[in-house]
Amino acid sequence: MDPSFLEAAKFISNEYRDLNGTGIEILDHPPSAIEFSRVIHISRPTIIKGFRFPALDLWTDEYLTKKMKENPISIATTPNGLADSICRASDGRLYFVEPFIEKMTMQQLLFKLGSKTTSPKPEIYYLQSQNGNLFSSSSFDSESNEATDNNSEFFPLLSDVPKEVPWCSEALGQHPDAVNLWIGNEQSITSIHSDPYENIYTVVRGEKHFVLLPPSDSWCLKERYYPHATYTRTSSSEALEILPSTEDIPQVRWSSILDPDSPNAFPSEITPIRVTLKAGESLYLPVGWWHYVRQSGLTIALNWWYDAEMRGMSWTLLNFLRNSTTIHDGNYNDNTD
Amino acid sequence: MDPSFLEAAKFISNEYRDLNGTGIEILDHPPSAIEFSRVIHISRPTIIKGFRFPALDLWTDEYLTKKMKENPISIATTPNGLADSICRASDGRLYFVEPFIEKMTMQQLLFKLGSKTTSPKPEIYYLQSQNGNLFSSSSFDSESNEATDNNSEFFPLLSDVPKEVPWCSEALGQHPDAVNLWIGNEQSITSIHSDPYENIYTVVRGEKHFVLLPPSDSWCLKERYYPHATYTRTSSSEALEILPSTEDIPQVRWSSILDPDSPNAFPSEITPIRVTLKAGESLYLPVGWWHYVRQSGLTIALNWWYDAEMRGMSWTLLNFLRNSTTIHDGNYNDNTD
Repeated sequence: MDPSFLEAAKFISNEYRDLNGTGIEILDHPPSAIEFSRVIHISRPTIIKGFRFPALDLWTDEYLTKKMKENPISIATTPNGLADSICRASDGRLYFVEPFIEKMTMQQLLFKLGSKTTSPKPEIYYLQSQNGNLFSSSSFDSESNEATDNNSEFFPLLSDVPKEVPWCSEALGQHPDAVNLWIGNEQSITSIHSDPYENIYTVVRGEKHFVLLPPSDSWCLKERYYPHATYTRTSSSEALEILPSTEDIPQVRWSSILDPDSPNAFPSEITPIRVTLKAGESLYLPVGWWHYVRQSGLTIALNWWYDAEMRGMSWTLLNFLRNSTTIHDGNYNDNTD
Repeated sequence: MDPSFLEAAKFISNEYRDLNGTGIEILDHPPSAIEFSRVIHISRPTIIKGFRFPALDLWTDEYLTKKMKENPISIATTPNGLADSICRASDGRLYFVEPFIEKMTMQQLLFKLGSKTTSPKPEIYYLQSQNGNLFSSSSFDSESNEATDNNSEFFPLLSDVPKEVPWCSEALGQHPDAVNLWIGNEQSITSIHSDPYENIYTVVRGEKHFVLLPPSDSWCLKERYYPHATYTRTSSSEALEILPSTEDIPQVRWSSILDPDSPNAFPSEITPIRVTLKAGESLYLPVGWWHYVRQSGLTIALNWWYDAEMRGMSWTLLNFLRNSTTIHDGNYNDNTD
């Protein structure tokens, strides 16, 4: 990558901020499809109130436990709440570490998330399987709106969740690629990253705290290549340890900004947008926007991912902006550009 | 402007072409508003068939003459068909030259455009006033759809033309800023330029030939600053001459590419899109796209300009791309970058 691209990216970053500010628009009601198409065209995060569906009223601990019975569900488990994040292993090297996946029942998960006791083996649990754990694109293969052919671990809950966001599907002219359920608490953190998706995120219970940066600020995210690893344990009684993956697993490109809330995380001219999303509120998180996410207390959320439009200028620009800085090996260029 | 920006602009230009190709989509019927919102989002030129309104059937020479009677209309008059273009004056300097505006009747214009005789004083006429000569944003101030308060020179024709393009207005959430009538023939040329508008262009009679380049190719348009001038004549019997404007008229930034059809107009990797638009066909010409326009025979066209969206990333990017090369004084750097 041409190092001079950095200056161009900084110019675009400043111009974008000057023209667009750092505010966030709030819609008091869900938009019509045509109104939402204009929001997508602007591609700014937007809070949308009033997108209602049964889960918002039904999903108490009791209801979820009763519905899910003894069904095993896959829970990301880490010693520190950092699933899919950069961590230093005992060998002194930094890795992109995926969580250990533990199977448990919904009742067990809710108990662990609500429990305030410090166990002798403290571990953090986060339902964040994000593989279309409720619905995926194949859920739309049949004409039926009923989720009869779904392999979801959360099958008993599917009737409480819309398969798609009507005004978003119509605006984009497509069904979602994946619909996910997220359940965690204040101990889990989603490290800062961006997705190649248009995203609708709805909080069912609790609160989500987002730190957001536009794609034009990609140059200060310090993306690096990190070797891949996974939390694992040798036996069920052992603590989780970082197990480096074999050499054939490709390195992972990830931001080196571990805490966007720290005072010196970004250059002084960069102003992240901070949004707290409460129960019943939805966030339109446009393709390419960087986001860091925390929760307050037990928090249940849903998201609908839609494939981004690759035709036109946006995709080209997103690629340029992400590639505007030289991407080093994270273990040899920790603190330099 | 940082000279290194040119390399970034070339990178974006290549990536855009690789991803989007140089084809043009054709819609056999006018889109719904939501369909057109997706077209706008992609921001690629699109041919739209079947957008019908009375002018398409009514506007024969006889009809236009009868309706317009002796009303004087403003016609751009030049010795060479180049209104709003770069021309060399007798002082040897290059100027951005605006046309002489001659008043005549519709009957006179149509006769001159249809006439094959070479007069002793050859002049080229083009109705291209493009100031909202049919409707402007003020036409939408009242709730009425009737054009009762319009000062248009073409008032008798207004009932034959829709004030707005319904699917475009709904997609953009606004009325057009200007609606224009264009009447010319093969002798008139519109020099290559881009507009800060979303544009719907419909051919009523004849054919329009467009040469189109995306905003990402702005770096090879060789924009320069040219002193302003106007074609004028000292008396009605004299030939038109270029009259340089006074120093207080600001210089005009304009492309130095006078003939995009010449073999060496652009670097070899640049592939203009060539479109011929026939009677009854419409072209969506997105904001920032470069266009050079000619006609075959007597050609009547209409266009609807809508203000471009300035929020979001598109406007920032358009500005960056246009500013990616250093803009010289056109008279001192004719052939260099």
